[in-house]
Amino acid sequence: MGYTIAEKILKEHIVDGELKKGTEIGIRIDQTLTQDATGTMAYLEFEAMGVDRVKTERSVAYIDHNTLQSGFENADDHRFIGSVAKKHGIYFSRPGNGICHQVHLERFGVPGKTLIGSDSHTPTGGGIGMFACGAGGLDVAVAMGGGAYYITCPQTVRVNLTGKLAPWVSAKDVILEVLRILTVKGGVGKVIEYGGEGVKSLTVPERATITNMGAELGATTSIFPSDEITLEFLKAQGRADAWKELKADDDAEYDKIVNIDLSALKPAAACPHSPDNIKPISELAGKKIDQVCIGSCTNSSYLDMMKVASILKGKTCHPDVSLSIAPGSKQVFNMLAENGALADLIAAGARILECACGPCIGMGQSPNSGGISLRTFNRNFEGRSGTADGQVYLVSPETAAVSALTGVFTDPTEYLGDMPEFKLPEKFLINDNMIVAPASPEEADSVEILRGPNIKPFPVTTPLEESIQAAAVLKVGDNITTDHIMPAGAKILPYRSNIPYLSQFCFGVCDSTFPQRALEAGKSIVVGGSNYGQGSSREHAALVPLYLGVKAVIVKSFARIHRSNLINAGILPLTFVHESDYDLIDQNDELELADIRACIENDKPVTVKNLTKNIMIPVNADLSGRSKDILLAGGLLNYTKQQAE
Amino acid sequence: MGYTIAEKILKEHIVDGELKKGTEIGIRIDQTLTQDATGTMAYLEFEAMGVDRVKTERSVAYIDHNTLQSGFENADDHRFIGSVAKKHGIYFSRPGNGICHQVHLERFGVPGKTLIGSDSHTPTGGGIGMFACGAGGLDVAVAMGGGAYYITCPQTVRVNLTGKLAPWVSAKDVILEVLRILTVKGGVGKVIEYGGEGVKSLTVPERATITNMGAELGATTSIFPSDEITLEFLKAQGRADAWKELKADDDAEYDKIVNIDLSALKPAAACPHSPDNIKPISELAGKKIDQVCIGSCTNSSYLDMMKVASILKGKTCHPDVSLSIAPGSKQVFNMLAENGALADLIAAGARILECACGPCIGMGQSPNSGGISLRTFNRNFEGRSGTADGQVYLVSPETAAVSALTGVFTDPTEYLGDMPEFKLPEKFLINDNMIVAPASPEEADSVEILRGPNIKPFPVTTPLEESIQAAAVLKVGDNITTDHIMPAGAKILPYRSNIPYLSQFCFGVCDSTFPQRALEAGKSIVVGGSNYGQGSSREHAALVPLYLGVKAVIVKSFARIHRSNLINAGILPLTFVHESDYDLIDQNDELELADIRACIENDKPVTVKNLTKNIMIPVNADLSGRSKDILLAGGLLNYTKQQAE
Repeated sequence: MGYTIAEKILKEHIVDGELKKGTEIGIRIDQTLTQDATGTMAYLEFEAMGVDRVKTERSVAYIDHNTLQSGFENADDHRFIGSVAKKHGIYFSRPGNGICHQVHLERFGVPGKTLIGSDSHTPTGGGIGMFACGAGGLDVAVAMGGGAYYITCPQTVRVNLTGKLAPWVSAKDVILEVLRILTVKGGVGKVIEYGGEGVKSLTVPERATITNMGAELGATTSIFPSDEITLEFLKAQGRADAWKELKADDDAEYDKIVNIDLSALKPAAACPHSPDNIKPISELAGKKIDQVCIGSCTNSSYLDMMKVASILKGKTCHPDVSLSIAPGSKQVFNMLAENGALADLIAAGARILECACGPCIGMGQSPNSGGISLRTFNRNFEGRSGTADGQVYLVSPETAAVSALTGVFTDPTEYLGDMPEFKLPEKFLINDNMIVAPASPEEADSVEILRGPNIKPFPVTTPLEESIQAAAVLKVGDNITTDHIMPAGAKILPYRSNIPYLSQFCFGVCDSTFPQRALEAGKSIVVGGSNYGQGSSREHAALVPLYLGVKAVIVKSFARIHRSNLINAGILPLTFVHESDYDLIDQNDELELADIRACIENDKPVTVKNLTKNIMIPVNADLSGRSKDILLAGGLLNYTKQQAE
Repeated sequence: MGYTIAEKILKEHIVDGELKKGTEIGIRIDQTLTQDATGTMAYLEFEAMGVDRVKTERSVAYIDHNTLQSGFENADDHRFIGSVAKKHGIYFSRPGNGICHQVHLERFGVPGKTLIGSDSHTPTGGGIGMFACGAGGLDVAVAMGGGAYYITCPQTVRVNLTGKLAPWVSAKDVILEVLRILTVKGGVGKVIEYGGEGVKSLTVPERATITNMGAELGATTSIFPSDEITLEFLKAQGRADAWKELKADDDAEYDKIVNIDLSALKPAAACPHSPDNIKPISELAGKKIDQVCIGSCTNSSYLDMMKVASILKGKTCHPDVSLSIAPGSKQVFNMLAENGALADLIAAGARILECACGPCIGMGQSPNSGGISLRTFNRNFEGRSGTADGQVYLVSPETAAVSALTGVFTDPTEYLGDMPEFKLPEKFLINDNMIVAPASPEEADSVEILRGPNIKPFPVTTPLEESIQAAAVLKVGDNITTDHIMPAGAKILPYRSNIPYLSQFCFGVCDSTFPQRALEAGKSIVVGGSNYGQGSSREHAALVPLYLGVKAVIVKSFARIHRSNLINAGILPLTFVHESDYDLIDQNDELELADIRACIENDKPVTVKNLTKNIMIPVNADLSGRSKDILLAGGLLNYTKQQAE
């Protein structure tokens, strides 16, 4: 039996488990990337692991999210990340150098390698034939420390491309079609693998647009073959030696096959408020618009910008439309400034923004009330634009540019004439002066970490104790979400690298006295009902209780991801054997988990003794294999540290 | 006796009073400008006047302040201003077209004309020989409606320039020297007029840098002669016909003369936290820096940027320094994109920001904690950068650029070699496609005003009633500030165009029930102690009480500016004849001002009858001339409307 591209890469990288769909596997990670919004915590976690130098082939820290800088926190974070990178062997892409995924593709991506990044659009790297996944900050920290990355061995969907895109129809329209077919849930647990004759007609940046927005399918990742087109791109980036061929075996087996005839595609839009709410532009044509934003990791490559410049040249953005354009990288920006295309964009009235994520992550350019905004981005969730009732449509750069001129939804294939030939340059402008190489191992010692007042160390974790005695400092009911445990929002988000500060808000919705009482108690246990920890995957909902001294959480049932986060944080997750025993513990009762370490180690039954009421309560730990080892070690960081030793 | 330049312009424009220093005069305003942060309220005020079309020669509405757009409010304001402009005969400079003062100089400024703008750096226009003043929004609205602008007839300081600047010494260093000599209070009540042979060596944009930052002297305005250099600039802007010669008479009399030898100047910096805290760069040389920001209405002209590009070309911004550059206008930006200079800036690692005010008004690029930031801007007040402990130094573009390369304070005259010749182009790139002309008077009727949910109309004012009967809904003590009456802060500021929303916070510090009680009462009177209304000049401290139905304020004594604001809002300001009578009124007493209109009209004594206590209390109105007429009309807007009829 033959292999798919993804299977070939996984096969070469598997270090734990076996290539059996649906089972957990651990893979070796060759490259990591971080952006600054998640990176600060990822590097705090890396620091807490105590590893001197990254063990990956290449790790890069990018600054592209918090670039508006409306307070000291962002600039402090940038300096912190820069200094950590220098000390620990990580390349640092300075603010202004561009969006992580665009720059990584240009300067670092290598076909056949594995990449994880603390950003959900890391699968962009699949455009160049990488197995590239978005991951949590702790996963990235662990990978930097040499640990494996654990995923569920995925199924594979083959998307078979035939034909060739018509003029002014774009790679964006391809992924919008895939989203129309598969929906935002269609990729869960799957790799989306592109193949077929149509692949040859797509440049690497076009392929990257498609794999980038594969994130919106919920897919593990998306991947294209590495072929002569890939080689051409790498040559033009002066990196031909990074190339290797990569294709699926003819007899590879797929779990699903989707056929798309590129030549039949028309320009489309993802309508509010979901990336799979697809309509052809022809259905929307003539509808008035208020704003156009061009850029983001999905559509900010050189050719995207050249097409936009060609459409806008000599014309003026419609008086009722605000048009902003952010090139994706310094390389792109610089080339546009050299070849005159940037002058064309400026002359047409485009508002040129710093090359960064910008409005795609709600950093500025919020539309007017109820405003209709056409964006070349990848997400149009309600309110993400910063305007609660903003109506965001996701479109191609071509559709965005022509609509900016007409002031209404406009189909570029109808509005524009013959398409000039747009070709990738034979040689990109290569100037890596905004990428700072790390210090040599010898010099690393003397590098000082620049830690602003908002950046606090990762909380200390210790191996599971022999016995635990602590009060039930908090007792909560059913359906507690991660938002109850650790709220988000504009007030709290700038402090995500400051666990002590964040801890003031822990469980604030349920009981604002909890943080203070927990700190005073030193050690504590939380008791809860069913579906405890539902909601987002935020790791802060475990890290903050860890900081406050929570040693165990005893509940009727857990939400899956939060339970993993507790284990990763070294907090013992226990469930009542009899749900009704929940009633046998009152808040502030003194509890004891006698010989708990030995029980976990030897898979013995665990019993909670309520010292206050003098009752024995049986509970389940359900820990085995890797999870057990992580918990005994006192969390994933400690575990990884031990493994590395 | 001869005249100064300022006197010549004033003489031609005076419509009320006479040219006698220290007395109030009214002058005719030829041009107005607004920016978006103050403009929304100014246009609400203009709308409230009910004037169909501006009566100025040229009024321009710019969008340059709130360009980050982190919520719907800013985009709504932009659309509102654009639609008001279109309807009422005002030119609209779209977001992305640049900073008001830079664009106005390029495209609209006319020597010998008067200009007021709702921005304190409007004196930039003095660089081209305008009499240009910063003013309140209501002043600008009144001027647009054809009303005069009232100022105290100023004294004149002559700054006599001799010699010629040494290579890499800059116009910025000239105004820093003037600030060193005169201090931030040295210009109060004065016009700073530049003359002498040295003037000939300065281009119009250099002169504009000097007059711009004259605002920091506290001056009424600053002005340069209009000469052949001015003509060259206007020719290059395709506006030679706007030129006229303008110079002081040889026997003009000055109140003070300052002599500056340009050839003796060295690069300097205004150190934290005042623009007059001047040190030579040589004293600071070698000190480590964290950030450099180049741009703002002070230093973002074509030549400023070309010099910076020449310094940065082929080099890389120091790894420890974040360098941002915002060209001042689309004209400048476009020319840099066409001639390759922008590519040089990008290649050197500069973060290119939208051409707007940006970090100068705290819109982004806040430095790191305690960070040392070199900025080519005009103000370095504590905390203005968005970082409470940021250390901002105001420097020339030349000093900023070389320091960005070295990472430490660096004197450009020491670091750089021979200076290439920098010349203004013979022809600027002229493309006014981002300036929207107003609708014709015929089409104006059909223009719809786009009013977002945050934009509420200006409160209605009515002529002074025959008699007033109302309760003393609020009684406060001594030293009430405008911050008591109408607080500011980040929570409230985005709502400055929403008087009803703001009104919830009126007197919140003193009595949070006041707004509700005042609204319920319909009409009300406020009673206060001495020095009522001290603090800032904010007009909202009168407009919000007006909205809440306050008809009169009776106090022991008023702060001067707030009393004017009350009169402008049509609220009757009264003082107790006997301060001790303050004790004769309790909160909620019912008061009557019988025949008040007749009393004011005929300068008769005014008496408050306390109906609750049945006591007669004599008070003073002290209204005469224009103030009386404004109050009788029901405020400055109504008054102006009447005058215009």
